[in-house]
Amino acid sequence: MQQTQLPLKGFSKLSNSEKIGLISQFAKLDVEQFNQTLNSFHHTDNQSLFDQISENTLSNYLLPYGIAPNFLIDEHWYFVPMVTEESSVIAAASKAASFWANRGGFKTHVSSLIKNGQIHFYFDGDGAALKKAEKEIIQSILPIINPLLKKMEERGGGYKNGFFSQTGESDKHLWQLSLQMDTANAMGANFINTCLEKLAPELLQQISNHPELKPTLKSEPYILMCILSNYTPECLVECMVECHPNDLTPLCGNLTTREFLQRFEQAVYVATFDEHRAATHNKGIFNGIDAVMLATGNDFRAVEANGHTHAARTGQYRSLSRVSISKDHFSFSLSIPLSVGTVGGLTTLHPLAKLSLQLLENPNATQLMSIAASVGLANNFMAITSLITSGIQKGHMKMHLSNILVSLNATPMQIKKAQQHFKHKTISVNEVQLFLQQNKTT
Amino acid sequence: MQQTQLPLKGFSKLSNSEKIGLISQFAKLDVEQFNQTLNSFHHTDNQSLFDQISENTLSNYLLPYGIAPNFLIDEHWYFVPMVTEESSVIAAASKAASFWANRGGFKTHVSSLIKNGQIHFYFDGDGAALKKAEKEIIQSILPIINPLLKKMEERGGGYKNGFFSQTGESDKHLWQLSLQMDTANAMGANFINTCLEKLAPELLQQISNHPELKPTLKSEPYILMCILSNYTPECLVECMVECHPNDLTPLCGNLTTREFLQRFEQAVYVATFDEHRAATHNKGIFNGIDAVMLATGNDFRAVEANGHTHAARTGQYRSLSRVSISKDHFSFSLSIPLSVGTVGGLTTLHPLAKLSLQLLENPNATQLMSIAASVGLANNFMAITSLITSGIQKGHMKMHLSNILVSLNATPMQIKKAQQHFKHKTISVNEVQLFLQQNKTT
Repeated sequence: MQQTQLPLKGFSKLSNSEKIGLISQFAKLDVEQFNQTLNSFHHTDNQSLFDQISENTLSNYLLPYGIAPNFLIDEHWYFVPMVTEESSVIAAASKAASFWANRGGFKTHVSSLIKNGQIHFYFDGDGAALKKAEKEIIQSILPIINPLLKKMEERGGGYKNGFFSQTGESDKHLWQLSLQMDTANAMGANFINTCLEKLAPELLQQISNHPELKPTLKSEPYILMCILSNYTPECLVECMVECHPNDLTPLCGNLTTREFLQRFEQAVYVATFDEHRAATHNKGIFNGIDAVMLATGNDFRAVEANGHTHAARTGQYRSLSRVSISKDHFSFSLSIPLSVGTVGGLTTLHPLAKLSLQLLENPNATQLMSIAASVGLANNFMAITSLITSGIQKGHMKMHLSNILVSLNATPMQIKKAQQHFKHKTISVNEVQLFLQQNKTT
Repeated sequence: MQQTQLPLKGFSKLSNSEKIGLISQFAKLDVEQFNQTLNSFHHTDNQSLFDQISENTLSNYLLPYGIAPNFLIDEHWYFVPMVTEESSVIAAASKAASFWANRGGFKTHVSSLIKNGQIHFYFDGDGAALKKAEKEIIQSILPIINPLLKKMEERGGGYKNGFFSQTGESDKHLWQLSLQMDTANAMGANFINTCLEKLAPELLQQISNHPELKPTLKSEPYILMCILSNYTPECLVECMVECHPNDLTPLCGNLTTREFLQRFEQAVYVATFDEHRAATHNKGIFNGIDAVMLATGNDFRAVEANGHTHAARTGQYRSLSRVSISKDHFSFSLSIPLSVGTVGGLTTLHPLAKLSLQLLENPNATQLMSIAASVGLANNFMAITSLITSGIQKGHMKMHLSNILVSLNATPMQIKKAQQHFKHKTISVNEVQLFLQQNKTT
């Protein structure tokens, strides 16, 4: 970068073409080509909207938007929109959906829509006295957020519970006020954070001046931070598929049904007791869930943090799914906390998120949680089934081959030939490139 | 859906217009409008490529593609491409980048590129004898993957280590062969899975016929499943920023530098000992990391599963970052395992992933790990700083307001007025809508 002084000042204030000019100079990219690639990903009608969603935006990143049909969930049919760049994920979800649709479908139960907020504060007074004054203090500060609570109550949510607890060892004097809020169909992050930041000064006031607490203080209390928690164990979705063991026979490949059942159980056992396997097992669940989260404009990082924290709650990181097998009953289930929204945020802003929700016939948060968990369980079921029968590479490499062929601009004739040629061969970009060179078609 | 029989058969084989017809009929959507929305997100030149990446694709989902400038990492400057739908993430990363660029930048260390594969198998013979034969068995089966290993060695990777271990309690007789592979600049999932599936029959052969093991078998051993692990603790990135405590003064807001330091330490303490806070603390780290993963065509579910499993490794889910403060030294650091690729997969297929890597001057996997971890640490640093000083809602709601205004098609004049009006007021879609109605401009 010639004489430009780094770090640059005021980058965000530059126009897009100034930004692009600077960056292409810095990274020694052809500015024309750089511009062309970025422009090719612009949205014709709504680019200014997408530019506002984040900062320093130059273009949009594309991820394939697909459909997993045939999900029967709580006796309702869904064509589920999924956004994923990983091949096989939508195919596997679709396959599991059809299979279970013929066996009663997915049955789900959502325990609540309660999210948690935390006001962390420093308090070196009498902890027992603080706990004793808990209800009184909370009741005295809540009125400040009454207008916010009223609106949330109109939408079916509201304040649920609050309590003080100490964080870590006592000599640090760190406490928190945990607030539980039902945020109805909103994910609720903005609502909770706004409530917490309004409550915090009131809370401090109360603690500093409370007649039972004030005399016990060694130094001035203060608010450390206010923030919602992405871990929402109260928002648990339970999702299950079940059938007679013999109904699994079509999936057993070269195994007997008995062998299939035994190995399915063992595969889940391994994911329960081996964290190396648990990580990948759960990753397969999130392949499905995140694809639904992206398609509906939800925050997949929040969903990941929530689910993985839950997976670690027993002191060991474990599988989120369980299997139960008896002589005449097979059931496979998933328990996962999910915090999602079907109103607010990107769900109303992003035209495709909006369309996704229309496709799902405008579900409420509870229904979207059920749908997402069902897709996660579907992907997990199909992954285990593949792993214990044919292995995953056969199907995966077939997809991989087709991706490589497209990227190398293979002709339809070459694609056909290559699919035949690589049926039992190892697939790599180099090998496919070599094959195409040797099989040029006019 | 009139008389169509559900579950549908052969959905994936239908043409796009047939799929769209069926779905719009099912969800009672206007087919013209549905088509129009989907088409508006098509890519002019490369739609057939995007259609091949996943299955049952009808369009593409757009996420904003932005730039965080001014990252100084290991004495090299980067303009980092980030893909995120969450407002403030790129702004926060950029702010932290500039701040630390003036204080020596980010310093990183990557321990290795070693990924793990697992062959799970059933073995009810003498475990001690199996462990004793470990080296011999592994050496005897490796030649079957020699061609694959050779290619990986040419790229700088290769086989590193292998060992047997038991999974869970002994009465289940489940064992695994763990293989450690350096996959160089590839994420390595296909490579490892292909190796494992080739090795498995050989392994079974060896175990079944080994003179020391065969006599100890009570029943026939079998391969349960072969699969890479997304938990790669060997691929650890250590990333750090450091300065004299007084250098933090510009960020302290209304706090003294001493108060700021104390509260920063306490905030990290809370994230270490309270899992509700840890989930959100780490979520903020992944906000940055995932945005880089998406922009470079990497698999963010793999990265999430990896990092969160690592966060739970001590038996409690904890913060991935640490702070260390002394009289004349402040350091803030992140340790996270990352499994990324800069070759293969989407990195070569997706035109914007390719562009992102060019922007980063074609990093190798080690460099991309350093970049992603630095962005994660930057986001975490700025989140803590905001939380303990001004709170996060002030900045966040400003962004939120601008999103709402754009979505409601506000005029530039209305936007200006609204920004003034809502400076100290609670922001919601309803309130903004009301304001716009009351402030119509011509």
